[in-house]
Amino acid sequence: MIKIDFSNLMQESLGSYGLARNDFDSVSATALSELQQTERYPENAFLGLPDADTAAIKDTARYAGEFDNFLLLGIGGSALGPRSILDAIYPFHNLRGKNKVLMYDNVDPMTLKSILDIVDLKNTVINVITKSGSTAETIASFMILWQRLKDLSLDPKKHLIITTDPSKGHMRSIVNDHGLRSLPVPQGVGGRYSVLSSVGLLPAKTVGVDIDEMLRGAADIHKSCLNADLWKNPAYLTASGLFLMQRLKNRDITVMIPYADRLKSFSEWFCQLWGESLGKEGKGLSPYPSTGTTDQHSQLQLWMEGPLDKVVIFLAVEDYGTDIEIPAVFQDIEGLGYLAGHSLAELIKIEQEASEIALTKNSRPNITVRVPAVNAYYLGQLFHFFELVTALTGILLGINPFNQPGVEEGKNLTYGMMGKKGYEEKKQEFLKYRSQKNRLVL
Amino acid sequence: MIKIDFSNLMQESLGSYGLARNDFDSVSATALSELQQTERYPENAFLGLPDADTAAIKDTARYAGEFDNFLLLGIGGSALGPRSILDAIYPFHNLRGKNKVLMYDNVDPMTLKSILDIVDLKNTVINVITKSGSTAETIASFMILWQRLKDLSLDPKKHLIITTDPSKGHMRSIVNDHGLRSLPVPQGVGGRYSVLSSVGLLPAKTVGVDIDEMLRGAADIHKSCLNADLWKNPAYLTASGLFLMQRLKNRDITVMIPYADRLKSFSEWFCQLWGESLGKEGKGLSPYPSTGTTDQHSQLQLWMEGPLDKVVIFLAVEDYGTDIEIPAVFQDIEGLGYLAGHSLAELIKIEQEASEIALTKNSRPNITVRVPAVNAYYLGQLFHFFELVTALTGILLGINPFNQPGVEEGKNLTYGMMGKKGYEEKKQEFLKYRSQKNRLVL
Repeated sequence: MIKIDFSNLMQESLGSYGLARNDFDSVSATALSELQQTERYPENAFLGLPDADTAAIKDTARYAGEFDNFLLLGIGGSALGPRSILDAIYPFHNLRGKNKVLMYDNVDPMTLKSILDIVDLKNTVINVITKSGSTAETIASFMILWQRLKDLSLDPKKHLIITTDPSKGHMRSIVNDHGLRSLPVPQGVGGRYSVLSSVGLLPAKTVGVDIDEMLRGAADIHKSCLNADLWKNPAYLTASGLFLMQRLKNRDITVMIPYADRLKSFSEWFCQLWGESLGKEGKGLSPYPSTGTTDQHSQLQLWMEGPLDKVVIFLAVEDYGTDIEIPAVFQDIEGLGYLAGHSLAELIKIEQEASEIALTKNSRPNITVRVPAVNAYYLGQLFHFFELVTALTGILLGINPFNQPGVEEGKNLTYGMMGKKGYEEKKQEFLKYRSQKNRLVL
Repeated sequence: MIKIDFSNLMQESLGSYGLARNDFDSVSATALSELQQTERYPENAFLGLPDADTAAIKDTARYAGEFDNFLLLGIGGSALGPRSILDAIYPFHNLRGKNKVLMYDNVDPMTLKSILDIVDLKNTVINVITKSGSTAETIASFMILWQRLKDLSLDPKKHLIITTDPSKGHMRSIVNDHGLRSLPVPQGVGGRYSVLSSVGLLPAKTVGVDIDEMLRGAADIHKSCLNADLWKNPAYLTASGLFLMQRLKNRDITVMIPYADRLKSFSEWFCQLWGESLGKEGKGLSPYPSTGTTDQHSQLQLWMEGPLDKVVIFLAVEDYGTDIEIPAVFQDIEGLGYLAGHSLAELIKIEQEASEIALTKNSRPNITVRVPAVNAYYLGQLFHFFELVTALTGILLGINPFNQPGVEEGKNLTYGMMGKKGYEEKKQEFLKYRSQKNRLVL
C-alpha cells in the first residue's frame, strides 16, 4: 500500500511553521460522509469505479489492439488520464511498442497535420472521448477525421470507438445513428475523475496494461480511506493538512513532485484535478507540476527561498524496477570518484530525501507519499487516493469539487464567434471588446 | 517582430484591479543600465550571445549529424533549452526525423535503461552538458556511458562531445586528458540563460535548425529592448508590469500559456528561468507552465475564479504554418454544425482571444505576446526577450537573478550521503534527521 508521511507538516518538524495536533480539531468531521451522499454530490460516482465491471472495456480493447495505431481525440481529463497511465507503465512507448498511441488534445493544426503524417489511417483505430458529446475541440477533430475516413473509403464503424455519455449528447446520437462502437462514461463521473473508467482503461488495456490490477489497487486504497476519524484515514488527513496549511499558514500552492520520469504525466493529471476542482469563489489552491530530480535544477530554488506559500508533495519511489551501477571510472578525479559504486536508484532516493530535509530545515512544509513501485496496482492507488484527497479538500474549503463554472464564459464567447445558434450576443460582446480595447502595445 | 500587448494590465481594461500609468513612476529607471554592468552582474553575458561566433558549433554539429542518434546528458537548463528548440521546430521529431534525439535529464534508472534499449551506441553521439563540470546527475550518467563505450570497444573520442566551461572544472580536465571533442559554454553565461549558446545551438544545428535565424531574431529583439525609457522598451515594460502587479496587487503567480503544442516545452523552459532566477530572500514570483487550448480544460477554472494571485501571459501565434478546415459533416445536428467551414487555426485563435476577454472581464490581469510564426527567428526572439524580462524583474525586485543559493543545501546533503570528501558532517546531519524524525505515517 502507498504510505503517507505527514511528519513535515507538523510542529515537531517545522516549529511554529507547522501544524499542531489540536489545529485539526477545527476540521469538519463530516466531510467524508458528505462526499458519500449522492443526493448532495451526484458526481461522486468515481467512488464506485474500483468495483465497476470492465468486460465491455476488455472486449473493445481486444478489438482496438488489432490496429497498428491508436489515435485518441480528447481534451482535459480525457487525455491527461490515459496519457498518465501510458507514460507510467510503458515509458517511451512509441519508440518501442507494437501499437503506437497518439493523443490529439488541442486544436493546433500543426499537431494534427503531424499526426496524420505519422499514422496511416487504414491501420488506425480512433478513440473519440467526450463525456458531454459537445466539447468543441474534440468535436472539431472528430469531424475532420470523419471526413478523412470517408475520403479514404474507410468504414467509420470499423475505425471509430466513441467514449461518451451512456444516453445523452450529440456523440451518443451519432453512435446510435451510425451504429458505431462505443463505451459509456458512467453516470456521475466527471472528466477529471474519469481515469479509472472507460476513459483511461480502454487506451490502457489496448496497449496491455493490467487494468484489473489498477482497479484492485484503487479498491484497496479506497477501503483504507473509509474511516471517519481523520487520524486513521490517509486521504482525510492529507486533505485536512493541506486545508489547514492554507487556512492557517497561507500555503496557497501545492507542488506535486514524483521522483520518477514515468510519473511526470501523473503530476500533470493531478494538476488538472486539483486546479479545476478547487479554484472557485475566489478560493482555491494552485497546483504546480514537477519531476524529481530534474526540477531540483529548475524549481527547488524557489521552493527553498521564495515566498512561504507552498506545500510540496513528494512521491518517493521505493523500487524502480531496474538499477544501474555507477562504475569506478575517473577515480583519480576527486570530484567524480565519490559516485563510484553507488547506483542510480540509490542516488535518486538520496536526492529526494535530501530535498525533503533541506525544505524542512527551511520551514517549508512537505508530505512524502511512499510508492512501493511504479506499476498498475500502485498507479491505481495513486489515482484514486488523490481523487479522494481533492474531493475532500474541496468540501473542507466549502467548494463544490465537481463543477467548473468558470470555464463557461470563454466557451460562450467562442461559440458566439464560431456562429453557434443562441450565442449571437456573445459574438457582439467579443467584437465590442476587440474594437474598444484601449491598446498599449510595444 | 514579436509584439507585446499590455492593455489588460491597465486600469483602462481592469478598473481598480489594473495599474495606472503613474504607478510606473515608482519603477527604478536604472534597472536596464544596472543589468548591463558586468562588474555588478558578471553573469550578464547572455546579453552578447546573439552576436557570438558560431563556427565551432556548426563544425561540431556537422560531425554529430553523421550519427543516427543524438543522446544528450544534462539537467536543468542544459536539457530544457535544447528540448524547447527541438519541440518547437521539429514537433514529433523522433517519430519522423532522421536523427533520433534522446535527452536524459535525471538519474531515474528506468529512463536510462529505456534509452539504452532504444539506441545502439555504435551509431550514437553523446553530448554531455554541464557548465560547472560537477553536476552530480550529469556526471553519474556520463560515468555510466563512458564505461558502456569501453565495454563495447567504442572510442570516446569518436562518440563524445563535451559542452562545459572553457577552462575550469572536472569535465574540462577530462576533455584535456583524453583529447575529447568539446564546446565551451561562454564565460558569464549561467545554465538557465544558456539556450542561445553551444548548450542549445549544438543539438539544434545537428538536427537542422537554422541557428543563424535564431540568433538574428535574438539580435533584433535585443536592439528593440535597449531604450532606457520603459514606455519604449517592451522587455522593461513587461518586467515593470509584472513587478508592479506583485508589489501593488499581490499577483504572485506568473502563468505562461502559449497557444501551440510546439511551445509547451518553451513554457517549461520559461518556468525554470523565472522560478530559479526570482525565488529568493522570501520573495519571488512562482511560474506556472501551461498550453492552450489544452489547459483551458485544466487550469482556466482556477485562473478565472480562484484567488486573485495570477498574471497570465498568453503567447498568441498568428501563422500556424498549416491549417485544416472543419468539413460540413453532421449538419443535421445543431450542436455540431456550427463548426463547419471554420478552420482549426481560426478556432484556436478565437479561443485564445475568448480566454483573454473572459479573464479581463473577471478582473484577471493578462499580457498577450503576439508571435507571428513558430520558427527559428521568432523562437530566438522569445528566448532572448524572456531572459531580458527575467533579469530585469529580478533587479526591480532587488534580487540577484543569476544565482541559486537555495539549492546548495540539498546538494551538500546528497554529497554527504554519497561519500564525497569534506561533506562528512552533512552525512551525520542526514542520518540524524532520519533517526530523530517524529514520524506520523498513515
